[in-house]
This record gives sequence, C-alpha cells and structure tokens, in this order.
Amino acid sequence: MAGNSRDPGRSVTARALSVLTAFDSDHTRLTLTAIARRAGIPLATAHRLVRELELWGALERDSDGRYAIGLRLWEIGQLAPVNSRLREIALPYLQELCQSTHDNVHLAVRDGMEVVYVEKLTTPRAVPIMSRSGGRLPLHSTSVGKVLLAHAPASVIHQYCERGLSRHTPYTITEPGRLGRELQVVRNRGFAQANEEMTLGSCSVAVPVHDVGGVVIAALGVVAHSVRAEVPKLVKTLLSAAEAIRQRLIEEERSSCDRLSR
Amino acid sequence: MAGNSRDPGRSVTARALSVLTAFDSDHTRLTLTAIARRAGIPLATAHRLVRELELWGALERDSDGRYAIGLRLWEIGQLAPVNSRLREIALPYLQELCQSTHDNVHLAVRDGMEVVYVEKLTTPRAVPIMSRSGGRLPLHSTSVGKVLLAHAPASVIHQYCERGLSRHTPYTITEPGRLGRELQVVRNRGFAQANEEMTLGSCSVAVPVHDVGGVVIAALGVVAHSVRAEVPKLVKTLLSAAEAIRQRLIEEERSSCDRLSR
Repeated sequence: MAGNSRDPGRSVTARALSVLTAFDSDHTRLTLTAIARRAGIPLATAHRLVRELELWGALERDSDGRYAIGLRLWEIGQLAPVNSRLREIALPYLQELCQSTHDNVHLAVRDGMEVVYVEKLTTPRAVPIMSRSGGRLPLHSTSVGKVLLAHAPASVIHQYCERGLSRHTPYTITEPGRLGRELQVVRNRGFAQANEEMTLGSCSVAVPVHDVGGVVIAALGVVAHSVRAEVPKLVKTLLSAAEAIRQRLIEEERSSCDRLSR
Repeated sequence: MAGNSRDPGRSVTARALSVLTAFDSDHTRLTLTAIARRAGIPLATAHRLVRELELWGALERDSDGRYAIGLRLWEIGQLAPVNSRLREIALPYLQELCQSTHDNVHLAVRDGMEVVYVEKLTTPRAVPIMSRSGGRLPLHSTSVGKVLLAHAPASVIHQYCERGLSRHTPYTITEPGRLGRELQVVRNRGFAQANEEMTLGSCSVAVPVHDVGGVVIAALGVVAHSVRAEVPKLVKTLLSAAEAIRQRLIEEERSSCDRLSR
C-alpha cells in the first residue's frame, strides 16, 4: 500500500472511506472528534483526511463547525445506475401512482440481505412511515422486501432465514417455513402484501419491476393505513406502472446501444 | 472533466477521489483503462484503487466489466443536506406543482458559479429539457440560475460576469450590464424569467426558496414551451410552494433542535 501508514492493516483509501462511513441517517452532522471516534482512527489522521475530503467537496462544514456529506459527493452518487438508470426512469410513474392512490409510493432494490429504498413519494394524506430514500429495512417484513426476496437466488433466501427473522410487530413472520411458503405465494400471484408486519397501522402491496432481460431488478410498492379492501385494484395499478417502467428501461437500453454503435 | 495530471505529490486520498471524478453524466460506465486515463493515474494505481473502491461499494462492475458509481456511494450521498434537508422536504410540493402545471419542475441550488439541479420532476406533456438531478447549468441563462445569482453576494455576481457570459441561443443575455439590470429586476419583482435563453422553445419562471434565517438557499422553477401568458399565475403558485417549503424547513429545524436539547 502506498503512503506511510502506521496502521499497515488498513490502507489510506480504506481510512478515507471510513470517514464517510461515520455518517448515517442518525448521524448526518458530526464534529471532527465524533468522526474520528466513529471511524476508529486517530484524531490527527481524521483531521488530515477530513480536510482533503472537504477540499474535494465530499464533506462540507456548517456554521457550527460540524461536518456533513458534501454536495459533490451527492452529485457523484447521482451517477449510480440505481439513480440514473432506475430512479429517474421510474420517477414519472411513481408520481402518477402517488397521485392516483394518495398513498406512500416506494421504489426499492435488494442489496445483500436488506431492502434499499431508492425513492419514496408521499402526500399529505398518506400514513407516516419509516422508509426514506437511501434508507434500509428488512426483507421479510415489508412488501417490497418480500418481492425482492421471493425473486432472489434460493441460496440468498436460505442464508436470509438462517440469520434469524427479526420481529417488528406481533404480525411479523418470524418462522422460516412460513416465510418460505409466503414467498412461494408471492411468486405465484405476482405481488406481495405486508399487513402491519413492519409498523402497526400500516399495510403495503408491492410488485416486481423486471429489466430488459426479464430479471427482477426492483420492487414497486404502495403503503397505506389499510389495503385489504383495495388489493386487486392496487395490484392492477402497480403492475401497469411496473410494465411501463420496464418498457422505458428497454427504450433507454436501445437508445444507449444506438449511441455506442454510432 | 477529469483534468488531473500525473502528479507524484498527490496524496492517496486525492488519487482515490480522482477515480470518482473520472465519472460524469456523459461517462457513467467506464473501463479500467478509461478510468486511469481520465483520472490521470497509472493503470496499476487505478487497478488497486478501483479494487478498493469496489470492495467498499463506491464502484460496481457490470457484466461487461465496466465500472459505474456504486449503490453505497449513492446511499452516502443521500445523507448530504441538499438531499436530506432540502430535496426530501421540498419533494411533496414539487409533486403538487408538477401536477398542477403539467410542466417540468426544478429545485436548484448554486454551487460556486453554476446551478446544480437537486430535483427535476416531469410529466409526459412537459417540454423536453436539458436538466437532470445532479446536473449543472450556467447561472445567467436559466431562471433558477438568475434567482440564485441575483441573491448571491455582489462579489460573486462581479466574478461571474468577469468570466464572460456564454451564449446558448440568440436570446441569451451576454452583456454584463444587461445581466446586472436583469438581476435587479429579479430582486425587485421576486421572481426570474428566462425566455429561450438556454434552449430554443423552452421558457421558465423561478422564485427563491428562503431558509429559516431568510437567506435564499434554493430556487424553485417551472419550465414550459411558453410561459408568457401565464406568468402571474405561475409566480403565485411558485411563491406559495416556496413559502410552504420554508415553513417545513422551520418545523424541521425546530424538531431537530428539540431532539438535540433532549
């Protein structure tokens, strides 16, 4: 490793990245001392790294002297395919869904053993929920999570169940056998439901979003106070939005191939 | 543009960051060779840095072997105040605006001498435009840019004009004196207009978004084929959305102070 590291086990790059990892949704503004502590690096090292990261725009300092993630890092992050090739394409359909249902609308992907929320649209009438864009929740207690887990490789499902299924409400499915049967139902029916399994008083329905090759790349869901009465109608609306997104993904893929072959 | 030179004095952190800078909206997927070239670093160094960044999740490799910005970097970027304290708060109001105008709706901030688009909502009926979330455009040829420049420190306006005003259409204001008078009008009237000054066939209106302390922190704009006839109505709708966003920013600030003092 280049650089005169006093910690030969960790490269300079790894330590710079650990500074970024010190930030999470509960810690969006940190003092230098807090960064050093949370990143597990000496204060002097933190000072030097933070200065470099601030100069580049990965961090910014507010008037209190605390640091936050910088505009430039947000900008670079916007180039990630999850944003530029999925969120931006899906956004008009999410807006339409939100407008027609007046409920929370989610677009989510699976990262390892968790759901990552790519976008959340809401309206003043919608039920307050825990998700936020860039946030993570479990796979077994949310309807988008169930869709993503149901279409994951069998080895992922097995490994997920092995780790134990956390209980969030009395209605969370915590027995692997029951979850396995539920996921089979999700695959057969083409949609997933979660009834107060993550938060009491909030229910959800979700469908898969397929990419050009037919692989499930995301899940599209609606969260409401109660969905039981409206499930068939909601599923129909969601499926037609998911299909519209798939068509736009195909068009995008084609036009990007055209650009490359020119 | 990655204009980095092969500088042995550059720190490891700077070189790791230069790998990220190799990516931009026209270069979202790059081979290792392209990354090395655009970052201005030797291939072997690029190989090692890319591997570390990929392991952490800052980069991801697709099936063609090309690299893109990774999900984890996008997630960390979502923690930036511009997203978590501005975009997320403003989003429901942007949706409402988009729904009522059926046009493109923009939320933008100033970074140095450029407009950065924080969010863009659109509808199938809206005029196709160049902006994208995370994208940049000039300050003098867009209505959001004019709002942000009009409320920037005088030294910024002076420096901006000194650099020369790029022409994008025959209607772009390129004389500093005329721009100065236009910015005065923007401050007096409380809104800005741009009529085919960035792109022929697209016009826009924008208003400032003030923060808790009354400082202009963002601009909110609508872009349409033609806005002339509807300007007073559009301005009224935009101003009421900007005021609603300010109120929500105040509430957020209060509840975050409450959390800290608990």
